[in-house]
Amino acid sequence: MPDFGTSGDSMSLRVAERISGIQPFYVMELLRRAKELEADGKDIIHMEIGEPDFATPQTILKAALAHTATGDVKYTPAAGLTELRQKIAAFYRRRYGVNIPEQRVFVTPGATGAFLLALGASLNPGEEVLMADPCYPCNSNFVQLYDGKTRTIPVDADSHYQLTTKLIERHWSAETKGVLIASPSNPTGTLIPRAELQKTIEATRRLGGCFYSDEIYHGLVYGEKAATALEFSDDVFVINSFSKYFGMTGWRIGWLIVPELFIEAAEKLSQNIFISTSSDAQHAALAAFDESTLAELEDRRREFEKRRDFLYDALVRLGFDIPIKPAGAFYIYARCAKFTDDSFQFALDLLENEGVAVTPGKDFGLHEAHHALRFAYTTSLDRLAEAVRRLERFLDAR
Amino acid sequence: MPDFGTSGDSMSLRVAERISGIQPFYVMELLRRAKELEADGKDIIHMEIGEPDFATPQTILKAALAHTATGDVKYTPAAGLTELRQKIAAFYRRRYGVNIPEQRVFVTPGATGAFLLALGASLNPGEEVLMADPCYPCNSNFVQLYDGKTRTIPVDADSHYQLTTKLIERHWSAETKGVLIASPSNPTGTLIPRAELQKTIEATRRLGGCFYSDEIYHGLVYGEKAATALEFSDDVFVINSFSKYFGMTGWRIGWLIVPELFIEAAEKLSQNIFISTSSDAQHAALAAFDESTLAELEDRRREFEKRRDFLYDALVRLGFDIPIKPAGAFYIYARCAKFTDDSFQFALDLLENEGVAVTPGKDFGLHEAHHALRFAYTTSLDRLAEAVRRLERFLDAR
Repeated sequence: MPDFGTSGDSMSLRVAERISGIQPFYVMELLRRAKELEADGKDIIHMEIGEPDFATPQTILKAALAHTATGDVKYTPAAGLTELRQKIAAFYRRRYGVNIPEQRVFVTPGATGAFLLALGASLNPGEEVLMADPCYPCNSNFVQLYDGKTRTIPVDADSHYQLTTKLIERHWSAETKGVLIASPSNPTGTLIPRAELQKTIEATRRLGGCFYSDEIYHGLVYGEKAATALEFSDDVFVINSFSKYFGMTGWRIGWLIVPELFIEAAEKLSQNIFISTSSDAQHAALAAFDESTLAELEDRRREFEKRRDFLYDALVRLGFDIPIKPAGAFYIYARCAKFTDDSFQFALDLLENEGVAVTPGKDFGLHEAHHALRFAYTTSLDRLAEAVRRLERFLDAR
Repeated sequence: MPDFGTSGDSMSLRVAERISGIQPFYVMELLRRAKELEADGKDIIHMEIGEPDFATPQTILKAALAHTATGDVKYTPAAGLTELRQKIAAFYRRRYGVNIPEQRVFVTPGATGAFLLALGASLNPGEEVLMADPCYPCNSNFVQLYDGKTRTIPVDADSHYQLTTKLIERHWSAETKGVLIASPSNPTGTLIPRAELQKTIEATRRLGGCFYSDEIYHGLVYGEKAATALEFSDDVFVINSFSKYFGMTGWRIGWLIVPELFIEAAEKLSQNIFISTSSDAQHAALAAFDESTLAELEDRRREFEKRRDFLYDALVRLGFDIPIKPAGAFYIYARCAKFTDDSFQFALDLLENEGVAVTPGKDFGLHEAHHALRFAYTTSLDRLAEAVRRLERFLDAR
């Protein structure tokens, strides 16, 4: 095979500049090591994984199997099956009491697809989006993808690890395009209180910005129901997903609600960048809102709540500092300043010595990250109990 | 529900500038009208659709059903299942005689995902990509998505409707990042000859550019086998898909081969913008390279060839000008200058009067577009024969 030069000797065979602004996930290093240890026969308890351990509900599987069996697995309309868009709209009416015309609903390949669409339709290069620190790392990387900028704002327990109206107003600049919040939050599991959500939307609108609301952990809450941004304004982008609450991670299906002004842009973009979302996943998701599915999901939610209660109590007992008991998602973001000033090394040591994998704070930002660890309770109570025993032994031995 | 302003009265609740550079697909207007006519009971022959009419092969369906039935439909590694990456690499060895390390293979949500990844990893805002006119419209829209620029270069039958070394050299500028070719081409169905492909890659490398090779219609060729760009260089991006040849459109699965230099960038990007490709689609695709699947696909290829021969002869007989008999894909790009100077209106009239839907040239560029129509032979020989009868009657009545 002839070749005309090797990688690197060319002028423009170069990685795009945006890539250097995308941080790798530190947890990947832990995952690699965890795999090696598992290959050596060591038992690893995975508390680093943001994926429910439950299988996809049977009703959803049945709907998928029936569709696949036809063999007629074809492109759908770019914005999604009309019936699915209608069901999503109906879900908003029933669960939140808001009326969303189905034309504003776009079915996407996961919440990642929803972010691609929302920011692609609204964000210009150089424009800035405000986010909390800590937050889910991909969110700022979507901004980076479109050559925008992220301004992260340190948040603490006193604001539920969420942005506030005051913080938004203080950090707003001429370059600011909008605000991205996630409630419940990954990694902290905390919610933005209903009244504060309304005020932040109001402030963002007053400042002339876009409001992006990541609601992918809605449904997985253990107290007051989470409010959707759509209860307070029609001019917001709402990102959601069938992955977490509905147990459909591997199917890659989510949705985006856009302001009316963005319908045409979202249609154009989705035709080009998706063609359509997986037909199987869409037909599967048609069963996601069935009463029997929702009943099963409610059982799972209660199981997650038990795990949270168990793990929260155990971590507090062991000396971790958790200023707010998380009210949603399946994460506990614990401060470990009492034990270490390097939570990444702590996580590596915990994995190496006790086979417990957790995610280091620095995957979620810079603010106090070296004093933080994220524990996911995406494994059974028995395994969580074993993890706590190992963690206790690990701390005793230090 | 309170609201704090309506769409449009805000400073920055504005559609991103890139959207205005994305053209709508004119064929959508035809599709809408076709649906209305069908709702009124009219029989429409769809020759506008770039989707095989065959169902997904049984072997692939079986693999998918077995996976779905487990309920364990979870995230996979971002770059794809290792086994699938290995099978794709093995396919390149067997079919083309080239050795691609599996680390260079990225499984993506369709070829659209492959384009998102390839251009996201390599193209900076303001940089320019050279493409043929006519070409598949989404390709320049991916460039637009990343705020790059497309320079389309008019091509004609004398270069097989493909870019040539001379054209590339003539249009290269200080802003040019690289060259995107598609062989077989959509809409023309023509291939870039093997020797010319090698020369264009050589020229692009000499100029210091990236070479993007869209090979999604490989396998659907009716003469000499299409060459992959990987036969001539390791430093090329190759976009491919399970959609067309493997009959998996609705599954949304494709792949990208990157130069070694781009592996890390592609990994970072895919972790962020996909998390992973559909687990079901990947498990299904594991059966795509089975001998029995490939035998079935070969039967389908022969059926497409018969359709091409029939339709090509018929269109020529009716007076359409088709300077090169297309050697691949499932399209015939026919010049209709003899009948009209407005091929879009011609397509609208043909649909309205005879219920035959075809795609107007202007969906594929500007160059001689008003004199061109794309006919897809993604329907049975019987239906094609009926379409030809209707077309003949339509021309007679003009």
